[in-house]
Amino acid sequence: MKEIKLEKDSLKTIPLRQIRIHDRFWNRYIRLVKDVLIPYQWEILNDRIEGAEMSHCIQNYRIAAGEADGDFEGAVFQDTDAAKWLEAVAYVLEISPDKDLERLADKTIKLIGRAQCEDGYLNTYFTIKAPGLRWTNLKEGHELYTAGHMIEAAVAYYEATGKTEFLHIVERFADLICQIFGPEDGQCHGYPGHQEIELALIRLYRATGKKRYAELAKYFIDQRGTGENYFLEEEKKDTYRQIFPEFAGYDTKYSQSHLPVREQTTAEGHAVRAVYMYCAMADLAQLNQDRGLLRACGTLWEDMVRRRMYITGGIGSSGILERFTTDYDLPNNCNYSETCASIGLALFGRRMAQITKDASYMDVVERALYNTVLSGIAMDGKSFFYVNPLEVWPDNCMERTSKEHIKPVRQTWFGVACCPPNIARTLASMGQYMYFADEDTLYVNLYISSSMSFELAGDETEVEMESDLTNTGRVKIRMTRREGAEACGLALRIPDYVREYSVRLDGETAGDTAEPEEARTAGNAPGLVKGYLYIEGIRKAETEIEIDFHVPPRFVRANPKVREDAGKLALMKGPLVYCLEETDNGGNLPAIFVSAGQELEEQYEEELLGGVTTISFKGKRLTEDAWEDGALYAERRAAFEDTRLKAVPYHCWNNRGPGEMLVWMKELFPV
Amino acid sequence: MKEIKLEKDSLKTIPLRQIRIHDRFWNRYIRLVKDVLIPYQWEILNDRIEGAEMSHCIQNYRIAAGEADGDFEGAVFQDTDAAKWLEAVAYVLEISPDKDLERLADKTIKLIGRAQCEDGYLNTYFTIKAPGLRWTNLKEGHELYTAGHMIEAAVAYYEATGKTEFLHIVERFADLICQIFGPEDGQCHGYPGHQEIELALIRLYRATGKKRYAELAKYFIDQRGTGENYFLEEEKKDTYRQIFPEFAGYDTKYSQSHLPVREQTTAEGHAVRAVYMYCAMADLAQLNQDRGLLRACGTLWEDMVRRRMYITGGIGSSGILERFTTDYDLPNNCNYSETCASIGLALFGRRMAQITKDASYMDVVERALYNTVLSGIAMDGKSFFYVNPLEVWPDNCMERTSKEHIKPVRQTWFGVACCPPNIARTLASMGQYMYFADEDTLYVNLYISSSMSFELAGDETEVEMESDLTNTGRVKIRMTRREGAEACGLALRIPDYVREYSVRLDGETAGDTAEPEEARTAGNAPGLVKGYLYIEGIRKAETEIEIDFHVPPRFVRANPKVREDAGKLALMKGPLVYCLEETDNGGNLPAIFVSAGQELEEQYEEELLGGVTTISFKGKRLTEDAWEDGALYAERRAAFEDTRLKAVPYHCWNNRGPGEMLVWMKELFPV
Repeated sequence: MKEIKLEKDSLKTIPLRQIRIHDRFWNRYIRLVKDVLIPYQWEILNDRIEGAEMSHCIQNYRIAAGEADGDFEGAVFQDTDAAKWLEAVAYVLEISPDKDLERLADKTIKLIGRAQCEDGYLNTYFTIKAPGLRWTNLKEGHELYTAGHMIEAAVAYYEATGKTEFLHIVERFADLICQIFGPEDGQCHGYPGHQEIELALIRLYRATGKKRYAELAKYFIDQRGTGENYFLEEEKKDTYRQIFPEFAGYDTKYSQSHLPVREQTTAEGHAVRAVYMYCAMADLAQLNQDRGLLRACGTLWEDMVRRRMYITGGIGSSGILERFTTDYDLPNNCNYSETCASIGLALFGRRMAQITKDASYMDVVERALYNTVLSGIAMDGKSFFYVNPLEVWPDNCMERTSKEHIKPVRQTWFGVACCPPNIARTLASMGQYMYFADEDTLYVNLYISSSMSFELAGDETEVEMESDLTNTGRVKIRMTRREGAEACGLALRIPDYVREYSVRLDGETAGDTAEPEEARTAGNAPGLVKGYLYIEGIRKAETEIEIDFHVPPRFVRANPKVREDAGKLALMKGPLVYCLEETDNGGNLPAIFVSAGQELEEQYEEELLGGVTTISFKGKRLTEDAWEDGALYAERRAAFEDTRLKAVPYHCWNNRGPGEMLVWMKELFPV
Repeated sequence: MKEIKLEKDSLKTIPLRQIRIHDRFWNRYIRLVKDVLIPYQWEILNDRIEGAEMSHCIQNYRIAAGEADGDFEGAVFQDTDAAKWLEAVAYVLEISPDKDLERLADKTIKLIGRAQCEDGYLNTYFTIKAPGLRWTNLKEGHELYTAGHMIEAAVAYYEATGKTEFLHIVERFADLICQIFGPEDGQCHGYPGHQEIELALIRLYRATGKKRYAELAKYFIDQRGTGENYFLEEEKKDTYRQIFPEFAGYDTKYSQSHLPVREQTTAEGHAVRAVYMYCAMADLAQLNQDRGLLRACGTLWEDMVRRRMYITGGIGSSGILERFTTDYDLPNNCNYSETCASIGLALFGRRMAQITKDASYMDVVERALYNTVLSGIAMDGKSFFYVNPLEVWPDNCMERTSKEHIKPVRQTWFGVACCPPNIARTLASMGQYMYFADEDTLYVNLYISSSMSFELAGDETEVEMESDLTNTGRVKIRMTRREGAEACGLALRIPDYVREYSVRLDGETAGDTAEPEEARTAGNAPGLVKGYLYIEGIRKAETEIEIDFHVPPRFVRANPKVREDAGKLALMKGPLVYCLEETDNGGNLPAIFVSAGQELEEQYEEELLGGVTTISFKGKRLTEDAWEDGALYAERRAAFEDTRLKAVPYHCWNNRGPGEMLVWMKELFPV
C-alpha cells in the first residue's frame, strides 16, 4: 500500500452558490432535481402520490407535534425522508433561490420544531410509539442515524439561506445527545447502529464552531468495536425490544463494530454504514491531524477500490444484508451495489483527495458518479434503481427467489426511500466534487462545463469551463482575473484512464503525455504530482487552457482474480462504462462473444437517450442451430454467427423499456 | 412434446430382497447405509451426538406417550426423522436381516404406537404443543407430510418384515384422515402444504388393497389449486397461527397450488414439493388409466428436464425458497438443487418409465442418481450436502450473504434432516431402479453389478450382472433358467449418451450402433423401441449377453439459452459428470480455459477416492503477470499459460478437504 501523506491544510471546496453548471451531459440529470425530484418527493412525504408506497412522514411530525391523531407509520427511520428532502432543497436554493420552495421548507422546519420534545429530543418514531425506549436499541433503532440526517439538512439549509431556526433545532438535539453519550460514568457508552451522525456532527462543528460536536463524533468513532460488543450487550438488557427480526444472529461486522476502527483493514458489512463511517474517520483524521486514523482510512480505501469494487464504482456485492463479502467476489448478475453506497464512496473519496491532494481518489469518485450514481435515476427523474447490477435478465428477476433484489426496471419510490433523495442531494451538490482550492491554486477534478467565480491568491477569479469529456475529450478553461493580480496556479487532474493528453496554456504546450504507462499506474509521471498537472505562476488577466484528453473507446479487462470477469471485456470511454442492451442487440446477451483487437466505431447520436455517444463493433453470437430439438445438454458443435453490436453508456440503461443488459462481454481469444 | 402412450400394465419392480448388489462403484456408498448412516442417525434421534443439532425426535414421542415430561422441541415436522430412519431400516432389513436392528425398530414402532392418540391421530408437535390446532395450518403445519412419511415407513417395514403393527398404526391414522378430508359437507376441503401423503396413500392402498386410501390421494390431487386458494383462505381464519414468518406474502406457486394440477405446464415452486406431487400424479394416472393426468405429468417432466435441470440432475435453482425459477435459469455458483429434489426427480422418472416403457426417463434418473444424489453424501457417510452447486469458491460462501446457502464442505447433520435419511433410503432401494419386469420380459435400466433371482415367464430366473459402466463401459449379463422353460425376453436400456455400442448374445451380435445420432435424439433408432433394445425368444438355460458401451470421456455443451453455460464445456464419461477440484488443479478455476478438440486421457486410479477414473487434458490459465501492481480494472493484455488439468467425478467432490470446484469450464474457441 502506498504511504499516505497528511497535508496540514485540507483543500477546500467552493461554495455551491458560486458555481453554475451548464454541461450538456450533466444538466439533463441536474435539472431533474428541482423540476421533478423535489416536487415529487414533497408529494410523497405528504402521501399524495397514488400507487407509491405511503411515506406518512409529514403526518408523523403532525402527530408528534400534537396537531393530529393517529399512530406512527412507516419505518423506524421514516423522519429521514423529510431531512433528506430538506437537504436537497437547501442545495437547490443555494444555487437558484426560489421563494415558494423556501417558504415550503420553512413551513416544514417549523413543523419539525413543534415536534421536538422539551428536552430537545427529536424522533417521531420513539416520541409517538415508544417514548420509554429512547436509546435502548442503538443497533436497530436508527435514532442517531436519523439525528445525523437531520443535522446535515440543517447545516446545509443554514449555509444556503443563512437562516438559523433549523440549525437551532438540531443544536438542541445534538446538545442532548452530547449529554447522553460519552465516556463519563452515567453516560451511555454506545454508538450508532447505522453510522451517519459522526460526519454530521463534524459538519455541525464546522458550521457552529462548537467543539463538543466534533468531540462527540470522535467519541463515537473511537468507542466503536472496543471491549464487549455494545450491540450484543444491549440485546441482553430488559429494555431491549427487537425491531428487525432479520437481524437475529447479529454479525458485528455488519455494522463495522467487530474491531476498533483503527484496526480494521478490510471493508466489511453493510456498505452504506461502512462508507459513512469512513467519511467521518477521514474528517477526524484531518481535524485532529491523526495519522493513525488516516492510515486506517487509506487501508480501507485500498481494500475497497482494489479488491471489492465494481468497474462501475458499485460496492457491496451481497443482496442479503447489502454488504461487502470477500476480496474479488464481484458477481455481476446478483450484486447489490446500492446507489447510496456509491454516493458514500464518492463522499469518502472526495475527503481523501482533499486531505492528501492526491487525484487518484477522484478517479474513483468520478467512476462512481458517472456510472452507478447516475444509473440510479431514470432520465425522466421519476424512477430509481437502489440496486445496480452489471448484468440483467428480466425473466429471472423474480420475487421470492435469490434474484428478488434485482429489479429489471427502475422503481417509482420505495418504502425505504434512501436512494432517490440521496441522488438528489448529490446532483445538487456536484460543484463540491468539481473543484478544490487552497490559498492560491485551483484544483480541477471533474471536467464539467460551468461558470465559477471565487477568490484565489487574494483576487476574485472567474473560471469558465467548456467540457466535452464524454465525447471528444476536449476541454477549454478560461480564467479571468484583475490585471496585476498575484500569481496563481492551476492543478489539473489527469484521469487515470487517459493514455494520451495535451495541455496548452495560451497556445503553448504546458504538459502532455509523458510515459503514459507510468502515469497511469503511479499517478505520478514526470510533470504530474499525485495525478495532478500543476501549472504555476499564472499572472495574466486572461488565461486560456486547452486540454485534449484522448478518450477513444477502450476495452478493459479485470484482474483475473475477479472470477466472474475472467475472460471477459468491458467497454469504456473516458469515465463512462458502456453496456449492451437488448433493444439494440437482441436477447441472450451472454451468448455474445467479442474480440479485443478490433476497431470501435463511435457515433454521437443526438436523438438517442437525450444525446449520447454510442460505440459499435463486431461480435459473434452462439447460434441455436444445433439445438432445434430443444435438447438441454448434448455433444453438439458450437456455431457462431457474425453480429454487429452497439453499446450505450451504463448510466442510461433501462431508459427504453425493460430488457436484458450486460457490461462484461465474453472475449473471443485468438488461439 | 412427444405423445406419451399409457401402457395398460405398468412395469413392475423386483422386490429388494431378491437383488444383491456387489458393484465396485455403488457398494462403497450402499454399505454406508447399514454400517454408518443408520447407527449414526439412531444416535441423532436420541440426541447422543455431541456437536450435531439436537433432534429431540424420540424424546418428543416419549412426551406424547406420557412417558416423559417436557415440551416439544424441534421443527414442526420433527417426527419424520423417525419415519425416514424406519423406512431406511426396512429396506436394509429386506436385503440383509439383522435381529438387533429389527428389535430396535420394533421398540421404536411400539413407542410411536403409544404416542398415537385414541382417535388415531399421530403427530407429536400438535399432540404436545398445539392440541387444539390440528389441521388449522395445512400450509405450514406439515401434518399431512409427516403422516405421509410415517405411512411410507410402515409400508416398507411391512414389506420387509411381514410385521403388521406399524402398518396398523398408520392405517388408524390414515382412516382418521379419510374421515377428516374429502368432498363431503363437513369434511375439510384442504390439501397438504407439503405434498408427500398422496404417494404414500397409494403405497398404502397397494399394500392393503383398501381403495379409500387411493381415493383420498386422488381427492388431494384433484382438489389442489381449484377455486379460492385453500391456503390463502386458511390464513384468514381465527384458528390460523403462523409457524414460519418467512412465508409471509405466500406465493401459491410455492406449493404448486396456483392452478389445478392438470392445468400446470411448468415446474414451479419448491422443488421437493413439486416432484413428490408429480409422483402421485403418475401413480394415479396409471391406477385410474387417466390419460389427462399422464399428459400433465409428461408436460411437467419435459419442462423440468429440458429447461430447468442441471447437467447433474439437480433441480430448483433458487436458494431462497429452494424453488424452480424460470426456463434456462441455471446459475452454477448459487443454485440450491437440493439432494431431496433430485431423489424426487428419480422417483418420478422411475414411475414414468414404468408406465410408458420408455427408457428416456431412466436416462434422467441415472443422471440424478450418479451425480447429485451421490454428491449429497461424503464417502465416509458422515457428512452431507443438502445444496449441490456446480461451482464453488469457498471464500465467498459466507454466512449472512447471498451465498450463505452454499456450503463449501458437507455438513454433519442439519436441524431439518431431510436429505441424509432420504439418501439412505434411496441407496438402500437402488434395486427398484435397476430392473423392471412384465410377465415375460426383464428390463435392465441401470448397469450395476448384482445377482438377482425372480420369476420370468413362469420360471425362476437367475441373473448375474457384471458391470464396469463407469470405467470401460463393458457389461456382462448371465441368465440362468430351467432347461425347457418358456421363452422370455430382455430389454436393455441403451443410454442416451452412448454413441457406439454392441450387444452380443452368446457370442452373436444381437444389436449394435445403428444410426447413433437418430438413436440418441429419438431413442427410437432401428432396433431400439423407446430406448430399449429388445432381445426376444430367449430359450436356453444359460444365456450370456455381452454389452460394450463405448463410454470415452466427452465434452458436452449446454443449449445456448442457458446463459450461465454459454461458451462453456462440461466433461462427462458415461453417466458421470466430471469436475475440476482445486486440490488437483490449483485455485481460481474460473481463470481456466479449455479447447474442445483434444485428446482426453483416462486413468483408473485405484488409490484415489476409493478407486476412480480420472480424466486429464490440456488447459490454459489466465496469468496474473500483467496485474502485479494489484490493479482491479485496466487496459491490460490477457496472457495465458499452459496447464495440465485433471478432472474427477462430480459425485466425489469435496472428499479431500475444502477447495474450489468447477463443472462448467470456459471454452477456448478456434477463431
